[in-house]
Amino acid sequence: MSGCGAEKGLISIDEALQLIQTRPQVLATETLPLGQCLNRYLAEAVYSNVNLPNFSQSAVDGYALNTMLEHLQDARFDLKGEIKAGSVSDCPLEQGQAIRIFTGGKIPEGTTHVARQEIVIVESDANIRLAEHIKPEADIRFTGEEIQVGQQLADVGQKINSGALAALSMAGVQTIDVFSVPKVAVVVTGDEVAETPADLQAGKVFDANGPLLKAWFNDYGLDVEILHIADEAEQVRHCFEQLKQQYDVIITTGGVSVGDYDFVRPCAFETGFEQVFWKVKQKPGKPLFFAEYKPLNSEGHPCYLLGLPGNPAAVYVAMQIYGKTLLDALQSQDQPLEWFSAILTHELKSDARERFLRMHAYFEYGQLKLQSLAKQQSHMLSNLMQANCLVRIPANIKIEAGQLVSGLFIHN
Amino acid sequence: MSGCGAEKGLISIDEALQLIQTRPQVLATETLPLGQCLNRYLAEAVYSNVNLPNFSQSAVDGYALNTMLEHLQDARFDLKGEIKAGSVSDCPLEQGQAIRIFTGGKIPEGTTHVARQEIVIVESDANIRLAEHIKPEADIRFTGEEIQVGQQLADVGQKINSGALAALSMAGVQTIDVFSVPKVAVVVTGDEVAETPADLQAGKVFDANGPLLKAWFNDYGLDVEILHIADEAEQVRHCFEQLKQQYDVIITTGGVSVGDYDFVRPCAFETGFEQVFWKVKQKPGKPLFFAEYKPLNSEGHPCYLLGLPGNPAAVYVAMQIYGKTLLDALQSQDQPLEWFSAILTHELKSDARERFLRMHAYFEYGQLKLQSLAKQQSHMLSNLMQANCLVRIPANIKIEAGQLVSGLFIHN
Repeated sequence: MSGCGAEKGLISIDEALQLIQTRPQVLATETLPLGQCLNRYLAEAVYSNVNLPNFSQSAVDGYALNTMLEHLQDARFDLKGEIKAGSVSDCPLEQGQAIRIFTGGKIPEGTTHVARQEIVIVESDANIRLAEHIKPEADIRFTGEEIQVGQQLADVGQKINSGALAALSMAGVQTIDVFSVPKVAVVVTGDEVAETPADLQAGKVFDANGPLLKAWFNDYGLDVEILHIADEAEQVRHCFEQLKQQYDVIITTGGVSVGDYDFVRPCAFETGFEQVFWKVKQKPGKPLFFAEYKPLNSEGHPCYLLGLPGNPAAVYVAMQIYGKTLLDALQSQDQPLEWFSAILTHELKSDARERFLRMHAYFEYGQLKLQSLAKQQSHMLSNLMQANCLVRIPANIKIEAGQLVSGLFIHN
Repeated sequence: MSGCGAEKGLISIDEALQLIQTRPQVLATETLPLGQCLNRYLAEAVYSNVNLPNFSQSAVDGYALNTMLEHLQDARFDLKGEIKAGSVSDCPLEQGQAIRIFTGGKIPEGTTHVARQEIVIVESDANIRLAEHIKPEADIRFTGEEIQVGQQLADVGQKINSGALAALSMAGVQTIDVFSVPKVAVVVTGDEVAETPADLQAGKVFDANGPLLKAWFNDYGLDVEILHIADEAEQVRHCFEQLKQQYDVIITTGGVSVGDYDFVRPCAFETGFEQVFWKVKQKPGKPLFFAEYKPLNSEGHPCYLLGLPGNPAAVYVAMQIYGKTLLDALQSQDQPLEWFSAILTHELKSDARERFLRMHAYFEYGQLKLQSLAKQQSHMLSNLMQANCLVRIPANIKIEAGQLVSGLFIHN
């Protein structure tokens, strides 16, 4: 097989991840309306301008009461109107008085208890009686019991997922500072992409990498255009020259090996990129290439080129591992990947390179277990119908059934 | 506290899920270009029109050889040009001949071996020599070795995630049949929503439910408009009357309890909805309401109303559990939720209702462990900054540390 592990100059997966995490210059921040920040990363901590709740309120539909009695079963109260959620009563409750109140309604001054309606007997339009004793403060939500004015709501780096966005909304946060998202160009190289079924006769293949990257970025939250260019040095060079000015990231597929038509590296060098690394001791995706272009005037942002191999499984794996790490690093995330640990249910032969295998993960009594899938070669994708994770298998060691390995869930 | 578990007529979480999974009439299917189908569900199985690979090809950059020799170390070959990936050679290889070939290049007729370039010594423009012996067929990808013509690529119900989309693209699949996505209207009821900070003085609160639902649907892949309506029967009725004609699903928040301003149920009944269930023995979200409107002419699709409580934590939990189940059921998915099992690291007091608690899950030696978070009440959301899962805690039993419980990851 190609690419034995003994080849020199290859770096490890951990070294590659470390370089991709630490090398990029973090993007600028921007202040945006909260509603536009879904799945962004927070660039400034957020503190609350309000108490939550902002006023003491009823936790139930029922009655606010004012009483000094110790035993409330059968206690009677004069009923003094009602308070809807979203409205207020200006009159303080006096002893022996009750007022109808609904969940979220602001309790009036003088309230000692709230009785839920299920235990209240309405004797007339003007009188109620309690069927049970209740404790003071039982169904009251007190001002600031969740969050107090000035308290930190979220820290730098917080991902603004739908839950975080809702929590900030509830505290009245209108705008937040987030890291800009990278501007990304995707370049699929190669003469072998079939445009029509007839092209298959001429030694071409259907494109998997273009649709794969379009969909992957869509899931990440970015709409990217896919550029197709031929394996010709002039075209590749021209493309890099244009893109490096306008984009923070260029992702390429194909053309990064040592074949005579592998123009990505030489053209990157000719257009001012400097290599950060080339070749990772991994399977799939050994010829992974990472380079940086620093603009001559110090105002522009650098452009990072992640050169992926052409085999679609290598592209898929590299995006889940390195692509996500790069995009997140540009937004100041230094721990973008959440590795799980899990038990392999079967043995695996040793291989000279560390591997990412597509597997099926399932829970059994709280234990995450892993079953490998067939057809792992780098030109094969069909097992992605069954795969729900990528599993990292160390090099040069036979893995026994029952051994622990680490991996990443495929969420979408 | 409100809502004791002894209340009659409540159904269980499992019963509610079962009704939401099985009651909806599945939506129509549509045939779409594959690239538009990200995160859709397949409505027809897909079979391959091609072999994968579609022709026998080189797995490496190297040389295709034709030889009958048993021992190939130091064997010499006449070099006959080259084949790029995406091009073909019309001349069969004859014994003793070699041709330069690149990864993915179609191997010419007569090929017996492919030698990777690392073990080939180029002696002249016309001659090469092998530095090592190689086995026949070592670096050849054979026609159909992954997929054969007519073989099933994906089954009904398959989620078209980015990996599945890429795998189908590679097999030349241009269009697929998928279930239509539901048309969803979201209605936030209540007079208590503050429009400006000044409104807070008047007993109002900032809206969490609108931004939450907007973001949640965005993550699900749907762009929904959020309608705000007051707690007035006439408005609610008018709203349902309009929406039921145009939408497959109406999600409401608030107004489903038994308060005097809870107009969702009565207005649903007045506009032709039939109750499927009301009230689930759960915390948060007891007054959950599910109803169905069947249009009089049999051509239209039914409209399903999922009435969520007004408390934002109940809304959040209900969307992850019941909202997702409903949207997926309309697309013929009967197992939308992937429950994990995990070990609770601490004890939990008994509660009369089954609970969904927001927790932090982490892996330890392959074991998924769970740590509960503070501030679980239904009007509190701030712990969603730390939560990465929702955990199901059975009713009426004290849970001991080390006990297994089930839950769902929060992916975004």
